[in-house]
This record gives sequence, C-alpha cells and structure tokens, in this order.
Amino acid sequence: MPAPKFRERLAARLLDIAERVLAEEGLAAVQARRITSEADCAVGTLYNIYGDLDALIVCVHERTLRLLGASLEIASRGAARAAPADRLMALALAYRDFAVVHRHRWKALFQHVLPDGQEVPASYEAQQGELLGLIERCLADHVADAGELRTAARSLFGSAHGIITLALEGKLGGATDAELEAQLRFLVESTARGLDMGKF
Amino acid sequence: MPAPKFRERLAARLLDIAERVLAEEGLAAVQARRITSEADCAVGTLYNIYGDLDALIVCVHERTLRLLGASLEIASRGAARAAPADRLMALALAYRDFAVVHRHRWKALFQHVLPDGQEVPASYEAQQGELLGLIERCLADHVADAGELRTAARSLFGSAHGIITLALEGKLGGATDAELEAQLRFLVESTARGLDMGKF
Repeated sequence: MPAPKFRERLAARLLDIAERVLAEEGLAAVQARRITSEADCAVGTLYNIYGDLDALIVCVHERTLRLLGASLEIASRGAARAAPADRLMALALAYRDFAVVHRHRWKALFQHVLPDGQEVPASYEAQQGELLGLIERCLADHVADAGELRTAARSLFGSAHGIITLALEGKLGGATDAELEAQLRFLVESTARGLDMGKF
Repeated sequence: MPAPKFRERLAARLLDIAERVLAEEGLAAVQARRITSEADCAVGTLYNIYGDLDALIVCVHERTLRLLGASLEIASRGAARAAPADRLMALALAYRDFAVVHRHRWKALFQHVLPDGQEVPASYEAQQGELLGLIERCLADHVADAGELRTAARSLFGSAHGIITLALEGKLGGATDAELEAQLRFLVESTARGLDMGKF
C-alpha cells in the first residue's frame, strides 16, 4: 500500500494518462494495462486506488463535463443580452462545436456503460445538473412550474444531442454543417414560439 | 462458386442467421465465423456472396427498417383522424416502443459504422426516406417549402431519437417512462405550437 502522498500523486498521474489516452484515441484505448504501464505502476495499483477502470473513466468524464461547462458558459455569457431564444441557439451551437473539437471525449460520455448495479457518483450528477441549469435559465421566465422546467430543459438537451449525434455520425445520409444548423434552428425556433418567447 | 439457385438459398440462409443473432444478442455477436458455421458453409462463401460482413449487416438493417416502418404505419393509421400534432405524438411513442421491444436491432442501426469510403446502398436510403416521409406528412400543411419540410422532419426525428436514446441508455440520471413521455410531449407540443398546428 503506497504512502498517502505518493498515493495521491499516483492517482493524479493515472487520471492524467487516462484523460490523454481517451481524448486522443477514444474510450476503447483506455485499458488498465496500458494506463498503468505508462504510469510505471502495477495493474493492481490502479484497482487499489480507483476500485475499477470504470471509476477512473468516470473521473475523466467529470473533467470532460467541466470543460464542456466552461465552453457553454462562454457561449451563454456572449449571448447574455440576447433574447432567450438566441441564447438557446448559442448554447446549441457551442455544444455542437464541443462535440466536433473534443470528439473522443464527447463520444465517450455516451458510449461508456457502467457495469450493472454501478451508478455515477453524486458529483457527476451535480455537474450534469449544472449544465442543464444553463438551459433552464433560458426557459425560466416562460415555464413557471419547477418540474416542467426540468422536463423542458432535458427535452431540449436530448433533442439537440440527437440532432447533433445523427449529423456527426453521418446517419440519415449525412448532413452538411448548414443542414445541421438548420435542424437545430428549427428545434429552437419551435420551442421559442411554443413558449411565447417573443422575437427570434 | 455455388450454382445460382444454391447461391440464392445460401444468401437467404446467411441473412436469416445474421438477423436472428443480431436481434437476440446484438451487433457485436454478428461475426463471420459464427454466421457461416451456423449456415454450414465456409467463411469465404459469405465474402463471396456479400462482399463483406458489413454489407450483410446492412441487409439486416434493411429488414429492421421495414419492421420499424410497419410499426410506424400502424401508429400513423391509428391516429389518421387525429390532429397533426397528435399524429406526431403517436409516431414518437411508436418509435419509443420499437426501440424498447427491438432493442438490439434498434441499437445496431446507430452503432454500426461502415468502413471508410463505404456507403449504404440506395435501397437503404430510400427506406429511410419513406420513414421520414411519415413525419413530413404530419407537417406538410404547415411547412410549404419542400426543403424546409425535409429539414423540419429530420430535426424532429433527431430530437425524438435523442430524447429516447438518453432515456433508454440511462444517461441524464435515468428517466422514468412518464418522464420520457413528458419530454417527448414537450417537443411535439412546442413544434405544434411553433407551426400553428392548432389544438393539441
């Protein structure tokens, strides 16, 4: 059992390596043997520190969510004085850009399946909640009920996520950038009109 | 090289086996060795007939799309006299039901990535177009421009697909059936109001 300080440094090193491998090569490349060999430690040490490989991957996802959050915050601030519908569109486009630029990180969030019975930690859910909060803030003046607001934000996120995923994966016969943007605009415009958000 | 009739029967047998394996065990279980061993033929025969395993899998997908089309047609007919928005909701729920019941078939449509440079055959695209046509018909009285109608239908399909995928895969902290339905309803209601489809 390594001493506390050494253990902390090793935990950080394993996470850094896993993050780099996932970002550069994708989820499938994150293998215990590969990560520990680069960290110059035994495979058992990874399990000793993180419990299992999935828990280490979830730590990488949390870094991805923070990075995504920073991108969305910037987009949200940039459109702070715009109408709510324009703020929604800015968020959708920023999410699309993140998916394009951080392709492997983004795909891994949705590809990664936890073993049966294992759940993501509360910190992960809290981060997801913060990101969805950015959408909720755009809708808040137009959806009074807290439960409905929660549902509306999740509906919109799932919708934009679906449109973007199908386009980037080349399903539905592939979509140009302009076509993807037009599909997102239809979604946001409909929502804005449906909620009487005023001008778009 | 097998004689024509024998070859046709073998092609059908390989397809039937691949379809059953994919439907029961998922895309990853569809391996050339497994399929040909069950069909009592050499691995090379599969390549000889289909070109490669991916082409055989695309043939399975075409059967899946036909099955999906039949489900959506039934839902569409059942709601034929309802308002367009209610027809859209019926389609969304039928798509959700298909994804639940034919889980492996449905996942495989989106998991399966063709090798670089290979494209789905025209027959596959035509079938996709027919399914999207069911959505277009619900919107046709409210979107005059043919290009916009095409975009609107693809936007709606991608949206419903995204909401359903995240819910069934347990992302976003998991959603109950009622929550999934509420998210789909928010999407359809917004679209209906946005397009002035009248009562919902």
